[in-house]
Amino acid sequence: MLTFVCPDQPGIVHAVSGAIVAAAGNITESQQFSSADTGRFFMRLQVQTAASRDELAATILPVAEHYDLDWALDEVGRPIRTLILGSTAQHCVNDLLFRQRAGQLPIDVPLIMANHDNLRPLAEFYGVPFRSQAVTGAEQKAAFERAVVEAVEEHDIELVVLARYMQILSPELCAFLEGRAINIHHSFLPGFKGANPYRQAHARGVKLIGATAHFVTSDLDEGPIIEQNVVRVDHSNTPAELIAIGQDEESLTLRQAVRWFAEHRVLLDGQRTIIFR
Amino acid sequence: MLTFVCPDQPGIVHAVSGAIVAAAGNITESQQFSSADTGRFFMRLQVQTAASRDELAATILPVAEHYDLDWALDEVGRPIRTLILGSTAQHCVNDLLFRQRAGQLPIDVPLIMANHDNLRPLAEFYGVPFRSQAVTGAEQKAAFERAVVEAVEEHDIELVVLARYMQILSPELCAFLEGRAINIHHSFLPGFKGANPYRQAHARGVKLIGATAHFVTSDLDEGPIIEQNVVRVDHSNTPAELIAIGQDEESLTLRQAVRWFAEHRVLLDGQRTIIFR
Amino acid sequence: MLTFVCPDQPGIVHAVSGAIVAAAGNITESQQFSSADTGRFFMRLQVQTAASRDELAATILPVAEHYDLDWALDEVGRPIRTLILGSTAQHCVNDLLFRQRAGQLPIDVPLIMANHDNLRPLAEFYGVPFRSQAVTGAEQKAAFERAVVEAVEEHDIELVVLARYMQILSPELCAFLEGRAINIHHSFLPGFKGANPYRQAHARGVKLIGATAHFVTSDLDEGPIIEQNVVRVDHSNTPAELIAIGQDEESLTLRQAVRWFAEHRVLLDGQRTIIFR
Amino acid sequence: MLTFVCPDQPGIVHAVSGAIVAAAGNITESQQFSSADTGRFFMRLQVQTAASRDELAATILPVAEHYDLDWALDEVGRPIRTLILGSTAQHCVNDLLFRQRAGQLPIDVPLIMANHDNLRPLAEFYGVPFRSQAVTGAEQKAAFERAVVEAVEEHDIELVVLARYMQILSPELCAFLEGRAINIHHSFLPGFKGANPYRQAHARGVKLIGATAHFVTSDLDEGPIIEQNVVRVDHSNTPAELIAIGQDEESLTLRQAVRWFAEHRVLLDGQRTIIFR
Repeated sequence: MLTFVCPDQPGIVHAVSGAIVAAAGNITESQQFSSADTGRFFMRLQVQTAASRDELAATILPVAEHYDLDWALDEVGRPIRTLILGSTAQHCVNDLLFRQRAGQLPIDVPLIMANHDNLRPLAEFYGVPFRSQAVTGAEQKAAFERAVVEAVEEHDIELVVLARYMQILSPELCAFLEGRAINIHHSFLPGFKGANPYRQAHARGVKLIGATAHFVTSDLDEGPIIEQNVVRVDHSNTPAELIAIGQDEESLTLRQAVRWFAEHRVLLDGQRTIIFR
Repeated sequence: MLTFVCPDQPGIVHAVSGAIVAAAGNITESQQFSSADTGRFFMRLQVQTAASRDELAATILPVAEHYDLDWALDEVGRPIRTLILGSTAQHCVNDLLFRQRAGQLPIDVPLIMANHDNLRPLAEFYGVPFRSQAVTGAEQKAAFERAVVEAVEEHDIELVVLARYMQILSPELCAFLEGRAINIHHSFLPGFKGANPYRQAHARGVKLIGATAHFVTSDLDEGPIIEQNVVRVDHSNTPAELIAIGQDEESLTLRQAVRWFAEHRVLLDGQRTIIFR
Repeated sequence: MLTFVCPDQPGIVHAVSGAIVAAAGNITESQQFSSADTGRFFMRLQVQTAASRDELAATILPVAEHYDLDWALDEVGRPIRTLILGSTAQHCVNDLLFRQRAGQLPIDVPLIMANHDNLRPLAEFYGVPFRSQAVTGAEQKAAFERAVVEAVEEHDIELVVLARYMQILSPELCAFLEGRAINIHHSFLPGFKGANPYRQAHARGVKLIGATAHFVTSDLDEGPIIEQNVVRVDHSNTPAELIAIGQDEESLTLRQAVRWFAEHRVLLDGQRTIIFR
Repeated sequence: MLTFVCPDQPGIVHAVSGAIVAAAGNITESQQFSSADTGRFFMRLQVQTAASRDELAATILPVAEHYDLDWALDEVGRPIRTLILGSTAQHCVNDLLFRQRAGQLPIDVPLIMANHDNLRPLAEFYGVPFRSQAVTGAEQKAAFERAVVEAVEEHDIELVVLARYMQILSPELCAFLEGRAINIHHSFLPGFKGANPYRQAHARGVKLIGATAHFVTSDLDEGPIIEQNVVRVDHSNTPAELIAIGQDEESLTLRQAVRWFAEHRVLLDGQRTIIFR
């Protein structure tokens, strides 16, 4: 799997495909996009080859330098090392672990961290180490965030998933995790930012509720959107019912975003994402 | 067709159904809702009866007075007298007139008014009187709005539909049309209020775009929501493509709202709507 | 909660609401439907009352006899005693148990039976007794079915859920479970009946795949449909991917059907179902 | 716009992109797919170039011959010459013509043919020549079909759209139009083939109804599927209501299929279609 981003210019596809031919590779999947907004060119390729990763990389390197490619090379299906942050809600974590174990989500989860203990039995059932640590004041919050940073480094974490973690991350942690932390927000952003979106949705009387998976940035609920889904509701649904109804959309939306990230299908184009589904 | 709203209390259904039995009526459709937010009770009934409208009304009157009912009685399928306000966009008007003529939308349209002349051939094709009047300054706007008020009165208009009219109505006209004017907004409210929602949606990188039909109030794009729909888009869609893609949702959403209003299926519960589909 | 079915005739609603008033009850939810196909009248009521279940039943009895009502009275939220039959697939069982434990599905599951042992750890995690028994020949199949009948009787089972059980039930067992067994079929029926629906869907090149929850009858995959959902796929999806993609729809569709059944929202009208959502 | 199909083999992308570089072209959109079922490779490219169509074709020709490409080259946005066949139903024709005039559907419609006269005013409104010819017996049917063949030849028709034409084409006409005739069937195929699908859907009690656009083949309603959509219905919908509800899905589904065909996004892979959306 090869992804790259570069200034848009003629000849890139030919040059890259030439490098792949030189490495005796066969392109099995290919997607590209030229952004009119940023003038950048995005491409994702899946290549079948007998060459090793290093050999392939060596063949691509000169092309990458010539065309100023920002590129990544990975083995298709390699599980991404993922740290899950949770709180009390179980549905998103349950969905991620169930799918991971079923072989439908290419992630490895060496650790789940939470600010409550509720998730422990679920983590134990799936055999995932679990650590909980209360976050009730500024000091505890700083301690929790330090523990996150340490876990990221200790376990070579590539992706941090906020599976209804419900705490606002500090700007420092947001910066540290930039481009590798995904949050699930339980509304159809940009509607109903902030706390209690289902209560807001009920008060506003919307006819569809939704969920949004986005990259975490220090600008709360404003990070680049990766995936969104909605489901129909009506006047008879109480805020409590909206919460129950919305759980499927949250689980599904977060899982899709995590899968696409793990498959290197998510590329950043300024404040927007390119999704090569 | 009978709708009523009253303070929630025991015995209402029995009392109303008793009046219907007394008028030799048979209930063919019935929906009810008790609002926990406002403590009000909402009901909509369709009744088959040999009794005249006046006879049925006379039987219900004592019940209505006893239970403090805010009620309405109408013949099922009677077309609602509807004034359409348009501008240059044709898709919503085309959809309403096509469905009306196909017998799928119980409205009569004695007049279409617009601030441009584009819709004239379409109106003529459907045999609907059309009047256009430019709205480029405060004075012209006031003149247009006076003409709207006159048309409402002259044609006994029961519903005003803003089919992409694109002008903000004055607070006075909003008040005059309260509860009987429906607007289609080309976004999934409350996201992307105001102008150019598709451009905003593109900039924000949302993965679904939508349309919202709502009652017109002086609070711009904040009126009670009647119906919403969304459709999936992706990073490759330009703002111009979003506009084209969104047209189906706009047409469908507006038509649904107009149909439900015309069938007396839309009741107001504070800032929210009850929709008895 | 009160449901009843009877020949359609005037005065039913008034008579039933009279009995409820007599028991000092307040109707909080009400739905009705007159079937043009069968000439029958269907109603579901939720009533708030200080009266006991027996008192309410006593008040309704004379009305029921007079109008020839086929009726049922139950407490809202009482969990329905449910037997789950499974095989190797885990997603539907996981979803039902997760939702049940989260308090979002009013069922009690005293037992899970399966023809394989795969589901055992999942059942143990949720603390549900599990029994597996191979079904590889006619004799073993008969033994399994006898065990099902015994379990139904021993545990006062009200609903049997075939959560991807993958075995065809004998006509005798179908008859024994009539109206109280729900199956999930992994296609959008009536398309792709029988085995390997995802393989069939791939071969036919459909653009949407789906799932159908239906009552079990001896006519394979022809029982009355309770709920259906679909999801978009495209030419690039392999049969294996269709299987993974379809799991969400299967879980969701089965769960909805089970919830509606447990809330007495599903009534039979010949080969069709009335769903009072 | 360049599409090609060939036996899957390494080096194709490099060779084709080389030809494009040689013609000073820049690839702005690119999609490819390797079919595991048929071992064929499919690709669609949009190229920006100052070269003429002939110059580009000349550059590609040697590559095409070397790799045994089945290829097509066309100008992006060139309207496809389209013959519409209709009957009495207006919604699909109205939708196609409205979108065509709005500049959202790259087709030219030199003629509409129908076996009834109902569509005449609609055709006239859009300024499209209209010819009706009754089809009540075998002889008239043969005459109508001869007229279709003549019209196809006279107007250089590239696509024939059966917009609810409701007549079964003869095997000869199917063969003549192979790969260039699209039909809209008013069900979610393969469910409810043949006549009266909405009546069948009602009788079966399905919870979603749909529409399917497919290539016309002599195997009735079995041609390769291009697009499908569904919409939710419930027990209360009469067959007449299903017909009205389904019209939007029919119009939308047919329009999508026509647009994709006109944009050369539909390629055939045996009985399945590749859709490069």
